[in-house]
Amino acid sequence: MSSDPGAGLALIDDEMVPVSEARLPILDWGFLHSDATYDVAHVWQGRFFRLDDHLDRFSAGMEKLRMRIPHDRDAIRDRLHDLVAAAGLREAYVEMICTRGQPQAGSRDPRTCTNRFLAFAVPFIWIADPAKQETGLHLTISRMQRIPPASVDPAVKNYHWLDMVQALFEAYDRGGETAITVDAHDHVVEGPGFNLFVVRDGDLATPAIGVLPGVTRRTVMEIGRAHGRAVDAGPVSAEAVRSADEVLITSTAGGVMPVTHVDGTVIGDGTPGPVTRALRDAYWALHEDPRYSLAVDYERAGGDRDGD
Amino acid sequence: MSSDPGAGLALIDDEMVPVSEARLPILDWGFLHSDATYDVAHVWQGRFFRLDDHLDRFSAGMEKLRMRIPHDRDAIRDRLHDLVAAAGLREAYVEMICTRGQPQAGSRDPRTCTNRFLAFAVPFIWIADPAKQETGLHLTISRMQRIPPASVDPAVKNYHWLDMVQALFEAYDRGGETAITVDAHDHVVEGPGFNLFVVRDGDLATPAIGVLPGVTRRTVMEIGRAHGRAVDAGPVSAEAVRSADEVLITSTAGGVMPVTHVDGTVIGDGTPGPVTRALRDAYWALHEDPRYSLAVDYERAGGDRDGD
Repeated sequence: MSSDPGAGLALIDDEMVPVSEARLPILDWGFLHSDATYDVAHVWQGRFFRLDDHLDRFSAGMEKLRMRIPHDRDAIRDRLHDLVAAAGLREAYVEMICTRGQPQAGSRDPRTCTNRFLAFAVPFIWIADPAKQETGLHLTISRMQRIPPASVDPAVKNYHWLDMVQALFEAYDRGGETAITVDAHDHVVEGPGFNLFVVRDGDLATPAIGVLPGVTRRTVMEIGRAHGRAVDAGPVSAEAVRSADEVLITSTAGGVMPVTHVDGTVIGDGTPGPVTRALRDAYWALHEDPRYSLAVDYERAGGDRDGD
Repeated sequence: MSSDPGAGLALIDDEMVPVSEARLPILDWGFLHSDATYDVAHVWQGRFFRLDDHLDRFSAGMEKLRMRIPHDRDAIRDRLHDLVAAAGLREAYVEMICTRGQPQAGSRDPRTCTNRFLAFAVPFIWIADPAKQETGLHLTISRMQRIPPASVDPAVKNYHWLDMVQALFEAYDRGGETAITVDAHDHVVEGPGFNLFVVRDGDLATPAIGVLPGVTRRTVMEIGRAHGRAVDAGPVSAEAVRSADEVLITSTAGGVMPVTHVDGTVIGDGTPGPVTRALRDAYWALHEDPRYSLAVDYERAGGDRDGD
């Protein structure tokens, strides 16, 4: 491999290549029909965090989409470890993907496709990096309605993001940094790559319908309850967000991140609040806990899969 | 080029390659977020059909998604002619695509992307080929709700097809060959790559909300009116489809195609009806009309873009 593996590696058709050189055949329905599911795990200080939860969701998504790959769960886990080890990344964003593949020539029948597995590991990505987390994010509540569950099951993690990308552009236009979409009843749903929580009187609420059941979201719900807080998964109105004591977003891409402004209005005193800080600290502490994390074996790098 | 250009050619990053070798970088948001728009034109007996209408829609879609490419409309048209000529295809399915591109390393801001143009030309694709058109298609009315306009503007032709693909699997399970999705009010909307018309007492009706304004659909509306038929673009209930005199679907991938069974029930006498046949004949006759079609200059093949 000629380029720096630390910039990231990808596995496609079981060949490991620099991520910048990894390409998908354009006729794969994963591109032409966004007929794909994926998941993203992360590595922090050399350890995967809750990788089995991500593998569970990824497997369930493939099954719901009637996709099958030749690798079982252990084989997928091995490949992800191999990627991170070969890239030598101590902090990584690790995406596993299954695409429909390509129908036989002239056919439009997805049953004729061979599904394709691919994956990549790149340096860790933050929706809000630690410096930004000190001031908090400016979120706008979008007019875009998130694609509803009657059309696409949000539990099948998917790339249908045109609504999300339009919400981002709308946020930038309005002076925001990121956005949350709504449903048809003006309840907030999810943002580009994250779930949302509001804090009121020390308790937590997070949308339950139309959202990806995020692994970071689940972790925050568990921590919140362990801290003695009520955690309500149910409808959260746009007004409840604007009037919350604290607002935070959760994502594998950054963990627990404070929101300090919503639609130009200050939340609380305009700085990350104490509940958000406590959840964030507890979230990162779990990364050293062997019940939640698993060390990458970096000795794998240079093994027989590397560069084959 | 080593492989048979007649199998199809693609243009990506302004390089012409066999379509089977054309690949998209996996980090392009066109894949990772289905952040793309496209259009499909076709060539029949050496002539593009209504190419300007497809270019209009493609340009409008890019503008709505805030995408920009370095090629103006004439340059896109030239590239599509080049592809078809170099492939030597007299009957072709010609797809033009604009993807968001890839954000700068570590960024999730689509404004940092350079949008990417690509295109491919392959042998003509039929949803129902001429033999199948003699018996007609078996359509099922899906339980899947098409992604609604409040989430994704259907006039921006897009790859958000997970609902469509699930509807196809559901159709196969129920003995059908293809499917039409519905909206939240049990009105039919669109199928995987096609619009739908029902015929009752000689008049036509086609869904208007939540559908791609198809070029073939528009052509059929124009022909229908020229034939003295009323053409109603408005809500079409699932029941109106099941009880229609005739049902037909329209697509660039096959033109005007009869449906003779819906959810296992025979439509009319179970054979393609006279209105459908008349519309189909008139549709194909327009392909020789210079007001609707433009000859491909096959002498372009081997020109300076070929294989560069």
